[in-house]
Amino acid sequence: MSPSRVEEGGRRGTIVPIGGAEDQIKDPGILKRFVDLSGGRRARIAVIPTASEREDTGRRYERIFKDLGVRGVRTFDFATRADAEDAEEIDELKESTGIFLSGGNQLRLSTVLGGTRAAKALRRANASGVPVAGTSAGAAFLSEHMIAFGDEGATPRAGMVTLAPGLGLTNRVVVDQHFRQRDRLGRLLAALAYNPFAIGLGLDEDTAVFLDADNALEVAGSGAVTVVDPGEVEFSSMDVAKAGEPVTILGVRLHVLGPGGSFDLETRRARAGVVA
Amino acid sequence: MSPSRVEEGGRRGTIVPIGGAEDQIKDPGILKRFVDLSGGRRARIAVIPTASEREDTGRRYERIFKDLGVRGVRTFDFATRADAEDAEEIDELKESTGIFLSGGNQLRLSTVLGGTRAAKALRRANASGVPVAGTSAGAAFLSEHMIAFGDEGATPRAGMVTLAPGLGLTNRVVVDQHFRQRDRLGRLLAALAYNPFAIGLGLDEDTAVFLDADNALEVAGSGAVTVVDPGEVEFSSMDVAKAGEPVTILGVRLHVLGPGGSFDLETRRARAGVVA
Repeated sequence: MSPSRVEEGGRRGTIVPIGGAEDQIKDPGILKRFVDLSGGRRARIAVIPTASEREDTGRRYERIFKDLGVRGVRTFDFATRADAEDAEEIDELKESTGIFLSGGNQLRLSTVLGGTRAAKALRRANASGVPVAGTSAGAAFLSEHMIAFGDEGATPRAGMVTLAPGLGLTNRVVVDQHFRQRDRLGRLLAALAYNPFAIGLGLDEDTAVFLDADNALEVAGSGAVTVVDPGEVEFSSMDVAKAGEPVTILGVRLHVLGPGGSFDLETRRARAGVVA
Repeated sequence: MSPSRVEEGGRRGTIVPIGGAEDQIKDPGILKRFVDLSGGRRARIAVIPTASEREDTGRRYERIFKDLGVRGVRTFDFATRADAEDAEEIDELKESTGIFLSGGNQLRLSTVLGGTRAAKALRRANASGVPVAGTSAGAAFLSEHMIAFGDEGATPRAGMVTLAPGLGLTNRVVVDQHFRQRDRLGRLLAALAYNPFAIGLGLDEDTAVFLDADNALEVAGSGAVTVVDPGEVEFSSMDVAKAGEPVTILGVRLHVLGPGGSFDLETRRARAGVVA
């Protein structure tokens, strides 16, 4: 499920992974910015609560987006693979100007949506300019290589992280969420040590990146984003380390970006945000 | 590392995953067919023994290809990430008309080559028409989602397989090797159950598929290829199964193709080979 092709002259929609537990009431800056990108009051936002096991997740987000002034909000309750093949639902989904994936379990997203018409529609929508946001599990699912599950701790150890194919809106990043809150640097490093081609994004709670069509990203929210760039890694022992053993990795570059900070995936340059 | 873009009017080179233990002397039909695709006697074949820990792997394959009549064979001994960034070596690599990756440990391939100039050169070569073959670990590495390691047995169980990003010549298949010899159906099913979008290819030893630019594949060698098509999967419990528990998957289509058998990744139609 690699990215759908962006048409000549077209621009991919912004991809917005959120680290979970985003502020929805007091200072909903992340969700507001997503709404603005989706067309503001005139947006038609599709909420996909598939990752969640709570029945009210869709309705809860409908309410939040309405409180932010959006008129058109609809929940697409893809609970089974058959739901995700329903032609009428997919036709409605295609009318969306913004798509939001809730939190929950990212393996539920990949097992229910993987390879279905709904997944194809999401990829095509993004390729044609529609912004797609996801929080927590929804954030993990957005990229081609998704962290399915793993252990906690700052040291990468062999076998501590399991990757699975995600939605594939981009294959340039691997996303982890609840990052500082759950001590996940080790598993993100382990995920990148397998094959040091992607950039790791460790998202704190109530923190998001807005990744635009030029592959430049900007941080928003109240926390920080840890950018792990393995582009200059000289050595990784992932191929020889035994299960549970610490993995040696030499030459990782790491940036911690606060709100307003930015990183360019093409040039791999980081900039700090302007201190208010 | 998704596929490099194929230029307008160009055709991707054939991708040739081999299940390991290919016959190299008595009936080297697989290697011979790869040589023919690479230009026959006039081929310039690059041997990449990075996966292997044996020092003589490169020389051994040089000898095999020379015995098949190829004049130009060269080993590219990328043992470290620094080797895989060496501009002179990469320039020579670009002159190849066929590329062959040996067996060994696929995580060595991904940790040493991932994100390097060598990996980029391999992807560009394939996109510009150069055939790329890999045996055993070399076969696993060819696609976007690579089985890094896993357990044996026919029943898929949660956590029994670990995926990692591979070279990414195609993202349409997930390859497993030594398939019947090592009882790996369970782990291939588990890999696909994460996200049922790709086609699983279980390659027996001394058996290969030749996957052409139109995404049609043909089986060659002395064994069989098990094609696992999850396109119609109605349900997978991968998101709720606990580690070690059997995973329920409903609606997998499975084909076992002998030599000459074929499968079209676009239409998902299988054909048996002509019985001799």
